Amino acid sequence: MAAVKLLGTWRSPYCFKVIWALKLKGIPYEYIEEDVFDKSPLLLQYNQIHKKVPVLVHDGKPICESTIILLYIEETWPQNPLLPIDPYERAVALFWIKYADDKTQSIPKIYRTTGEEQEQAVKECSEMLETVEQHGLIEGKKFFGGDEINMVDIAFCMVAHWLGVLEEVAGIKMFEPHKFPKLHSWAQNFKSVPVIKENLPDDERMFAWLKHRREMLLAPKSN
Amino acid sequence: MAAVKLLGTWRSPYCFKVIWALKLKGIPYEYIEEDVFDKSPLLLQYNQIHKKVPVLVHDGKPICESTIILLYIEETWPQNPLLPIDPYERAVALFWIKYADDKTQSIPKIYRTTGEEQEQAVKECSEMLETVEQHGLIEGKKFFGGDEINMVDIAFCMVAHWLGVLEEVAGIKMFEPHKFPKLHSWAQNFKSVPVIKENLPDDERMFAWLKHRREMLLAPKSN
Repeated sequence: MAAVKLLGTWRSPYCFKVIWALKLKGIPYEYIEEDVFDKSPLLLQYNQIHKKVPVLVHDGKPICESTIILLYIEETWPQNPLLPIDPYERAVALFWIKYADDKTQSIPKIYRTTGEEQEQAVKECSEMLETVEQHGLIEGKKFFGGDEINMVDIAFCMVAHWLGVLEEVAGIKMFEPHKFPKLHSWAQNFKSVPVIKENLPDDERMFAWLKHRREMLLAPKSN
Repeated sequence: MAAVKLLGTWRSPYCFKVIWALKLKGIPYEYIEEDVFDKSPLLLQYNQIHKKVPVLVHDGKPICESTIILLYIEETWPQNPLLPIDPYERAVALFWIKYADDKTQSIPKIYRTTGEEQEQAVKECSEMLETVEQHGLIEGKKFFGGDEINMVDIAFCMVAHWLGVLEEVAGIKMFEPHKFPKLHSWAQNFKSVPVIKENLPDDERMFAWLKHRREMLLAPKSN
């Protein structure tokens, strides 16, 4: 029995965060793909509160919530650190991770809505991108923390990879290179890291799934 | 010049969290009361992203967001620990802290709204209370972590002290002792800790302020 198991789904960026962290640390694990529309008894047992993936199981004990899982991974396997050692720099990194966790939730709203609701999501998303472009990234640095990828980069993964596909599905363009040059350059650096590049959902499969999902979500409901 | 300063307001439970953590650790600090309706240049300089209190300033460097501040305090001054040492127990504590941070946001909505919006807030709040009563607290334990107060108790402070006053202001009663016996017993234990008891906002002052605030928020807007 593997000491580390991951319950996940290819549909969720939150699960990819955990995959990348484990691979960046070099931790072998068993991956179990969950059907989010027919949740397994294992998932329901391990995450009784939210009933959601990802769940990391280490020596039989479950850890839930992607950011909490990443903090646990960082503490348990300190090699190839994903957070600064200095407490102040660490607090700054955690600030941006929380910012990403809170604000990137506006990104999937873009493809799940239409009309006024969608306008609101686009507004929130644009404000987030502007804040990160202006305050989060430093000119000339490859990543949020400097020259190496860390947990802040991982926290903003939805901007780097998912946003473009979601824009296409929703028929919207807001994340334009001339408006967000630093973020675009960062996204390229992020997706050039071998562990990230080799572990991303397939664009075409994701597009087809999200397009189908949007149609389902926006279809008139029968009573 | 004090090495530790706290920019806060007596109106915000998030600021009390930081006060309690500093006092539980025995860290001397200078407290600066902020006027949240006329923010100081210092606050705007220190928290450029959210422009909100609390801000902890340590050796001239600002840390924002109450939970991030508490993690920084824990790391910088490890005496009287506010989180478990064991990585797994720590992950479980961080899970409940995140749960509290996310879900107790429904609490202030109760007094800021009426009608359907208020019903929705009451529903969310009740679900949160039921989950914590059922899964978060262990029968016979004084606090979330056992016999000593820790960061999870602090994270749920709005349930212990603010919820009752907000219910009164909104004319609603949901947090009833017979429905939530474990949570009520915990709230009593929490408010019996000297550092908490001696550092709580005055109930009458809070009631008057929240009543006034509710009237302002719900007053018909003139164009």
